[in-house]
Amino acid sequence: MTETIEDFYAVIPAGGIGSRLWPLSRADAPKFLHDLTGSGHTLLRGTWDRLEPLTGPDRIAVVTGRAHRAAVEGELPGIPDRNVFLESEPRDSTAAIGLAAAILVRREPDVIIGSFAADHVIRVPHLFDWSVRQAVATAREGYICTIGIQPSEPSVGFGYIKKGEGLIIDGAPEAALVDSFVEKPDLETATEYLMARSYLWNAGMFISRADVLLAEIEANQPELHAGLIELAEAWDDRDARGPVVDRVWPTLTKIAIDYAVAEPAAAKGRLAVIPGHFDWDDVGDFASLSKLNSGGRKENLAILGSNARVLADAASGIVVSQTPRVISVIGVKDIVIVDTEDALLVTTTEHAQRVKGVVDALKLTGRGDVL
Amino acid sequence: MTETIEDFYAVIPAGGIGSRLWPLSRADAPKFLHDLTGSGHTLLRGTWDRLEPLTGPDRIAVVTGRAHRAAVEGELPGIPDRNVFLESEPRDSTAAIGLAAAILVRREPDVIIGSFAADHVIRVPHLFDWSVRQAVATAREGYICTIGIQPSEPSVGFGYIKKGEGLIIDGAPEAALVDSFVEKPDLETATEYLMARSYLWNAGMFISRADVLLAEIEANQPELHAGLIELAEAWDDRDARGPVVDRVWPTLTKIAIDYAVAEPAAAKGRLAVIPGHFDWDDVGDFASLSKLNSGGRKENLAILGSNARVLADAASGIVVSQTPRVISVIGVKDIVIVDTEDALLVTTTEHAQRVKGVVDALKLTGRGDVL
Repeated sequence: MTETIEDFYAVIPAGGIGSRLWPLSRADAPKFLHDLTGSGHTLLRGTWDRLEPLTGPDRIAVVTGRAHRAAVEGELPGIPDRNVFLESEPRDSTAAIGLAAAILVRREPDVIIGSFAADHVIRVPHLFDWSVRQAVATAREGYICTIGIQPSEPSVGFGYIKKGEGLIIDGAPEAALVDSFVEKPDLETATEYLMARSYLWNAGMFISRADVLLAEIEANQPELHAGLIELAEAWDDRDARGPVVDRVWPTLTKIAIDYAVAEPAAAKGRLAVIPGHFDWDDVGDFASLSKLNSGGRKENLAILGSNARVLADAASGIVVSQTPRVISVIGVKDIVIVDTEDALLVTTTEHAQRVKGVVDALKLTGRGDVL
Repeated sequence: MTETIEDFYAVIPAGGIGSRLWPLSRADAPKFLHDLTGSGHTLLRGTWDRLEPLTGPDRIAVVTGRAHRAAVEGELPGIPDRNVFLESEPRDSTAAIGLAAAILVRREPDVIIGSFAADHVIRVPHLFDWSVRQAVATAREGYICTIGIQPSEPSVGFGYIKKGEGLIIDGAPEAALVDSFVEKPDLETATEYLMARSYLWNAGMFISRADVLLAEIEANQPELHAGLIELAEAWDDRDARGPVVDRVWPTLTKIAIDYAVAEPAAAKGRLAVIPGHFDWDDVGDFASLSKLNSGGRKENLAILGSNARVLADAASGIVVSQTPRVISVIGVKDIVIVDTEDALLVTTTEHAQRVKGVVDALKLTGRGDVL
């Protein structure tokens, strides 16, 4: 399992600020540029390190905003220049992944691409590796393939993939068709899903031939597809690229790949799924971050920050320290404290989802300087 | 009631850091130098403003540490130089008030002094005024007189004074003997005290002839008394004072005036009490500070800090902001957040008393830089 996959290319869309992790995650320091597990490296770097054994260093592309170019290249010194695809502004995931597909298919017509978010946490890399290899084998058969995470608890925070009929594919013993996508359920339904074992968490990983992916975009979003093709044709020509990007990129339809590709493909029986048996988390909010860093023990106070000076007494939850200040926490349960130079957040894991509302309120009240 | 009291001198002991208000209150910025009510002036200044109508500006003395001289004089520009009594180190309240008594009695043998803490909050000043005038009238009769606060709720946070037999004193219709002092009670007992109406909160205010106070100190603490007399004899002689202070002050017995004066005087039937009908709080901890600043409404989030930038959603308690940072508070009840340049405290009003333990822990673990 240590060989790279010859016809495979990984794409890492590194957009998205992670508003629900404010004030840790910011416009100028988005989630993927943070170390959220105390591992000593950023989530982006962790994503690279997980993919590199599958692709080699020359076959990973990152799609990111112009503002993050330097930070991304700093984190990934091994990335070739031509594999950093810069967006002039965010146009959602179909544009980001579709652009990568359109560029890469011109370089290599039979290429299989897999897109993996820059800001997820995955543990047990050899199980991830095994799922990707099965997904690539499935993609070679012409399917668009996703990796759905086998739930470890009845989560109400994720969307689900309902697994359908099994597929017989060489090198992918666990491949199955996707029956349908299911919205975030309530706890009772999530518990049924967990018991049923045929519902998987939608982790937004898509593996397919680049040409198959583009054909699906073309079928559902022809204008967007035309824009992507025009961009790709100019992309590897340094003189031509700039004007085309300036003209075309801002016109691209903003749509998530789930709607532009995955759901229509599922409806046509062209979407496959491989179950992922690894630990996975999208670190969507501070409740998730707290859980991820507390060693699974609810009574713990997790502390994130390389120079944290925390004095705690009868406290649980998480403290994120980005300043040299002494932080004293007394008698608070499931607390979330995020201490940064210009903003402080105090909430509880229960209310972690409401952080996004604060970000919206800060924008509305003219305090966007701290976003 | 607008005339000053001719033979009266007020003494403000301004010592004590207020450890339970850390990190707001510090060694170099003790409680009395803070505005804890949003009034726009410090507690020390508030104390001065309350006393000045009773004494005039030339008859208020402040006993404080050398380190606080500049700050005290800055807050009280009207105070005469000779009325700032500087301690070389804290030696508890009997030394502080006794020193003032010993100095003032040499200047004016029949003087009546009243000592009032620099860091208490009192509302309804005309009722305070009326209590002090009664206490002075009682002191003229040779009693040591305290002002006990008529409880407004069954507090378990204060010591109580049990009122005894009424006294018949001209100008002091409410004067009574003190039967005894009672330690902080449990809630049930405090409720009985509230119903009984003969139990008053011990607010540490003592009014008496200076010579009577000194005689009581002499009877109970003869060595301490001798030291105070020696200090006072040298005090108003600029050349003599320094060496005597250096030699004698560090040897003075550290004892609270409650033990050295009030309890023995009560036992001898020489301690009188005037009930205070004004709002009073010693702002002993953040629970008290929160209550004081929330307009009496438990569901409010009180905000203290002239430049506070607080965004709150479903939060109650108190935020003290001493930095320009945006503070976002979501879904926390009875929270206490104190945000200062080098230290942050997060606790709840319920655990406010435990803050002192943190201060001790910071000392022990070598983080005294933030105290």
